Amino acid sequence: MSSEFGKILRVSVFGQSHGKAIGVVVDGLPAGEAIDLDALNAFLDRRRPGRSPLSTARKELDTPVFLAGLEDGKTCGAPLCAVIENADQRSKDYSELQDKPRPGHADFTAWAKWGRNADMRGGGHFSGRLTAPLCIAGGIARQILARRGIHVGAHLSSVGGARDMLFPLHPTKALFDAVAAKPLPVLNDHALEAMETAILAAKESLDSVGGTIECAAIGLPAGLGGPMFEGVENRLAAALFGIPAVKGVEFGGGFSAAYGRGSQNNDSFFIENGEIRTETNHAGGILGGITTGMPLVLRVAVKPTPSIGQAQKTVSLSRLEAAELTIHGRHDPCIAHRAVPVVEAVTAAVLLDLLLEGNHGTF
Amino acid sequence: MSSEFGKILRVSVFGQSHGKAIGVVVDGLPAGEAIDLDALNAFLDRRRPGRSPLSTARKELDTPVFLAGLEDGKTCGAPLCAVIENADQRSKDYSELQDKPRPGHADFTAWAKWGRNADMRGGGHFSGRLTAPLCIAGGIARQILARRGIHVGAHLSSVGGARDMLFPLHPTKALFDAVAAKPLPVLNDHALEAMETAILAAKESLDSVGGTIECAAIGLPAGLGGPMFEGVENRLAAALFGIPAVKGVEFGGGFSAAYGRGSQNNDSFFIENGEIRTETNHAGGILGGITTGMPLVLRVAVKPTPSIGQAQKTVSLSRLEAAELTIHGRHDPCIAHRAVPVVEAVTAAVLLDLLLEGNHGTF
Amino acid sequence: MSSEFGKILRVSVFGQSHGKAIGVVVDGLPAGEAIDLDALNAFLDRRRPGRSPLSTARKELDTPVFLAGLEDGKTCGAPLCAVIENADQRSKDYSELQDKPRPGHADFTAWAKWGRNADMRGGGHFSGRLTAPLCIAGGIARQILARRGIHVGAHLSSVGGARDMLFPLHPTKALFDAVAAKPLPVLNDHALEAMETAILAAKESLDSVGGTIECAAIGLPAGLGGPMFEGVENRLAAALFGIPAVKGVEFGGGFSAAYGRGSQNNDSFFIENGEIRTETNHAGGILGGITTGMPLVLRVAVKPTPSIGQAQKTVSLSRLEAAELTIHGRHDPCIAHRAVPVVEAVTAAVLLDLLLEGNHGTF
Amino acid sequence: MSSEFGKILRVSVFGQSHGKAIGVVVDGLPAGEAIDLDALNAFLDRRRPGRSPLSTARKELDTPVFLAGLEDGKTCGAPLCAVIENADQRSKDYSELQDKPRPGHADFTAWAKWGRNADMRGGGHFSGRLTAPLCIAGGIARQILARRGIHVGAHLSSVGGARDMLFPLHPTKALFDAVAAKPLPVLNDHALEAMETAILAAKESLDSVGGTIECAAIGLPAGLGGPMFEGVENRLAAALFGIPAVKGVEFGGGFSAAYGRGSQNNDSFFIENGEIRTETNHAGGILGGITTGMPLVLRVAVKPTPSIGQAQKTVSLSRLEAAELTIHGRHDPCIAHRAVPVVEAVTAAVLLDLLLEGNHGTF
Repeated sequence: MSSEFGKILRVSVFGQSHGKAIGVVVDGLPAGEAIDLDALNAFLDRRRPGRSPLSTARKELDTPVFLAGLEDGKTCGAPLCAVIENADQRSKDYSELQDKPRPGHADFTAWAKWGRNADMRGGGHFSGRLTAPLCIAGGIARQILARRGIHVGAHLSSVGGARDMLFPLHPTKALFDAVAAKPLPVLNDHALEAMETAILAAKESLDSVGGTIECAAIGLPAGLGGPMFEGVENRLAAALFGIPAVKGVEFGGGFSAAYGRGSQNNDSFFIENGEIRTETNHAGGILGGITTGMPLVLRVAVKPTPSIGQAQKTVSLSRLEAAELTIHGRHDPCIAHRAVPVVEAVTAAVLLDLLLEGNHGTF
Repeated sequence: MSSEFGKILRVSVFGQSHGKAIGVVVDGLPAGEAIDLDALNAFLDRRRPGRSPLSTARKELDTPVFLAGLEDGKTCGAPLCAVIENADQRSKDYSELQDKPRPGHADFTAWAKWGRNADMRGGGHFSGRLTAPLCIAGGIARQILARRGIHVGAHLSSVGGARDMLFPLHPTKALFDAVAAKPLPVLNDHALEAMETAILAAKESLDSVGGTIECAAIGLPAGLGGPMFEGVENRLAAALFGIPAVKGVEFGGGFSAAYGRGSQNNDSFFIENGEIRTETNHAGGILGGITTGMPLVLRVAVKPTPSIGQAQKTVSLSRLEAAELTIHGRHDPCIAHRAVPVVEAVTAAVLLDLLLEGNHGTF
Repeated sequence: MSSEFGKILRVSVFGQSHGKAIGVVVDGLPAGEAIDLDALNAFLDRRRPGRSPLSTARKELDTPVFLAGLEDGKTCGAPLCAVIENADQRSKDYSELQDKPRPGHADFTAWAKWGRNADMRGGGHFSGRLTAPLCIAGGIARQILARRGIHVGAHLSSVGGARDMLFPLHPTKALFDAVAAKPLPVLNDHALEAMETAILAAKESLDSVGGTIECAAIGLPAGLGGPMFEGVENRLAAALFGIPAVKGVEFGGGFSAAYGRGSQNNDSFFIENGEIRTETNHAGGILGGITTGMPLVLRVAVKPTPSIGQAQKTVSLSRLEAAELTIHGRHDPCIAHRAVPVVEAVTAAVLLDLLLEGNHGTF
Repeated sequence: MSSEFGKILRVSVFGQSHGKAIGVVVDGLPAGEAIDLDALNAFLDRRRPGRSPLSTARKELDTPVFLAGLEDGKTCGAPLCAVIENADQRSKDYSELQDKPRPGHADFTAWAKWGRNADMRGGGHFSGRLTAPLCIAGGIARQILARRGIHVGAHLSSVGGARDMLFPLHPTKALFDAVAAKPLPVLNDHALEAMETAILAAKESLDSVGGTIECAAIGLPAGLGGPMFEGVENRLAAALFGIPAVKGVEFGGGFSAAYGRGSQNNDSFFIENGEIRTETNHAGGILGGITTGMPLVLRVAVKPTPSIGQAQKTVSLSRLEAAELTIHGRHDPCIAHRAVPVVEAVTAAVLLDLLLEGNHGTF
């Protein structure tokens, strides 16, 4: 029940949306790793709102201040701590919500757990804003991995009914570099238009729309992870479900594989340049919880933003009676595209943790 | 990288398919809990093969022997250990496989990790057989939960293209009791026939077919779990991906919710008998990682059995050259139906762990 | 290998002595707990240097700023983060030390682990200064415990050869309140003088002196903890060895008990007001890793401050040759008395963690 | 609150003294490690009772049966499980104890935690008998370490007032080999006689006597462990306090250092064959939680066996009134000498865990 994940590399996130600051402690980073702060800020920019009509008009500058762990631009072995001050707080927008839980939000469950003590202004500790410190941690991990030839990238694989999936499951670094440079992080430009249309249509109906994100890691060695409960899938899923609004995680063929046959889903082995590889990659780079050396491919389901402009039925917590609620303020009609770098960040942090832990198969 | 899960209740699984025995240690069980061994054996029977033409003809008696932790039929506070001897071992079936990894199996990754030291006869520690000790641990947890009004049940929600999903997401204990008594654990009898047909068709083509399993827990209090990384979804997913062949996990609306809109997916609150409840349950009983008190609903994707009778392309590990492999022996054309109690078992163990940990929201 | 401890209550410390700030994240605090900031600052004052000739002349204001987790003076369920800015940094004092590891310090091992990347100015992340954030976390835990009738106190049980031990092991809250108000936290005033003399004598010889601290918790229920590896002693010791300079931890009779006989060490049971208690308390309130309900009593050994003014033999790391080192700057001739509140803090945090985890013996 | 320890290498102990069997699961062992079963049995012999008048007359054959994880005498990557059947159970000896907790034993706290459900026959899960599976796990770890030039040895450093301490703290493998071959594991033969006398004197008075054990590991690289809470001392102490009857743990100079001065306790660095070493080793091979590369030296305090033949004052749990208790049956007048290999075992398991985790200082 905590806001931390990781075994060797521990990532601990803190902050509430409308508190003084949000931040992250990253414990276990190897020393001597140079952090490219410009690249890190560019990475953080990818999740920042206020950049297009597809997102909320709120502005967040989100410039991290490093309190510890970074000396002369390099990690020094001690835990790293970065904080982001909360500036643009409009707490008045949220006053009514203290008594009327927003459907689809954690307002009700925070009350069930913490009573009236919960600070739920702006979503409190459950706010999507907490993904900014996650991106700091994961953005650093992503740089460290890249230096070792391991590249983590993601793209928006669907918005509402508009889909844009990887096929085959053999992505390249160049592909993801191209994706990251687009206004919406998509593979195919024709998908971009369909997705924009879906988001704007939802916005116009005072509604929101969900999406899915496909993420891949290229360059992982075979043999990471292990059987059963601390395998690669277990650890990635445990962390990915920590991203607000994620309701599903699948690897490789995932649910689609479950609707098909073994002869289609099994990946044949072959030899390429003296290396054992598979022709297809329905396994998503993982067999028995252990990496195969093929690209790791996963998908997460992001539910539609629960904050919508339509009037909704709720209850008054204090009077235990029916109530109506209309959420005002600025909200994202879709958060899936902004969650793309967050999925990369969490994936990168978990993979660096696994790499630091090492193979341990033999000694 | 271990075969354990849990925080207060620790479940540690050991054994290889063709070793001397398989078993489980369950540490952290409360003392004084009577275990109904007949009910436990009936639960284990639900995953046992050899009961119908839909499964392998291998016979496993799977009667657990309790070495520790159980005195006079009750837990005594000390760790519980149960073992099952391995009897029906046909190691000769597997000799060729030592050099030719089976596509879709962990043979290759076990070799990448452990080299020739891995004991992969019959799948070794990755074998579906290891789900028997999981069912002992989870079957015990399920009894302890039931005594407190919390019921965990599951059903086969699809086999190949034949689907049979819960709708709405408001299952009852009676529903699951009825499901468990059927030859295939389905909700609707018309689905039973379609699923049997799909399995037998796969068998006839020397192929296999995947499936999905829907699992629910009824009677959970609101307020269990927490935000971000140790929430209910995180911990369930981390454990569920430990079941061999699981490639996807989703909660409530899951991936479907990601294809829709917020106005459809948000669950309106209302008051029923003085309790706050939601009209729909697309959240699957979890908001912000914390239980809402509505039924917890999750789904897992089980890939098609990788062992199929058709000739497949693989490689020789020793000679690093292409090879062909035809797997002989007795194999399940579908494992999803046998995995139904396993999903219940893992879900029950994680939920008991969360309950033992308590709410902690206030003190 | 991390700067965190705890299971339900996670305490994560960050910062380097001469970095931008030091701080702590406390994850898992129950919501709704009022924090008395005046009392907390008074607690922090007890470890602060610069208050007497017995300590370093460095000044640290150490006023914590709360970035998260505290709203209107109460915990809100989200992780708490507090930071203390580093103001009085005299980095020039430490420049020579980069190449010449100080005997008895972590300079050499930090270099062995992190190479030249380690930020060891002022001891870096190993500095006694990092005990300030520990005292914030533990000071909060101590207040929460006190509200439930559990009081944690400690005193200086020896400095050099001057001893002042509890006898019998039945301390009271009043005793520790009196101790905390004294210039040196001692039980008996005649010990105060002997200890002051020992510290000043060491100071005069450009030397330092070690000490021991005895800590007790009064009011704990019986039944906390468990057998073997996560018992009360295991968890306290694991955390207490995290305090810089601690080289030994013992409970109840400890090493003295090991020099004696069973008939002396066994604590007879008797009934007092309907409660089962023991006449003596050589067990220090713990039998089999589980609390007895008697006062928990432990002792830690604090080695003499390794920073001494005398010339010492060391090596040059860059030239791998013998070198001499004279440490300048302001240093504590003894740190044991300043460590008294730190031992209380760590003990309180571990005990609150155990209490939050609950008994779990029965369900 | 569990019977497990370790991070990469997980050791999970199960069993009750008078249950069906006791055993251990070791998860995370590297594959391909040959286990010399004769050497392992010889190691187990060192803790076995019934070999001399200094121990109980109970006989335990303690031959481990390996259920999993060992194939053709080598580890195979899967979790290892070994069990020892309980044969010589005289449950009748313990019947009176169910109502009258033995002073100094866990009978009372087990009752406080688990009520009448606890199986405390022969000490149940708290019995010293549970150190046999610990020795299996640690004996295996010790072999794996030895193959890499790391040797773990221990000796009886005191029994009652008779002491026999290492000086200086520079032990060798040859020293410990010689110790292990003696009837009592002592350094100096003149100590042997004094210790035997102390044990026999206690036995004659129907009493018992405590002891201390000094353990060392030679050949560790510098740089293992880390600052604060997961350092080498923290992890060793957390595990060592899991050995029944251990009430104190200290490293290097330990409590003695706390009674002295910095100029005596600091270890000067010097260069020997191009390696940085220290002239003395009061740090016990650890500075700042990180290994120095010098021998790791620790000491544990073992309290006098609480089972003594004299009449003792206790209470009736059922009637809540004073009672007298005379413990019959066969008991050890001292357990410290039998605990010597147990301390080696636990130390070896923790050190192998640290080695598997790796240095991680840089990447």
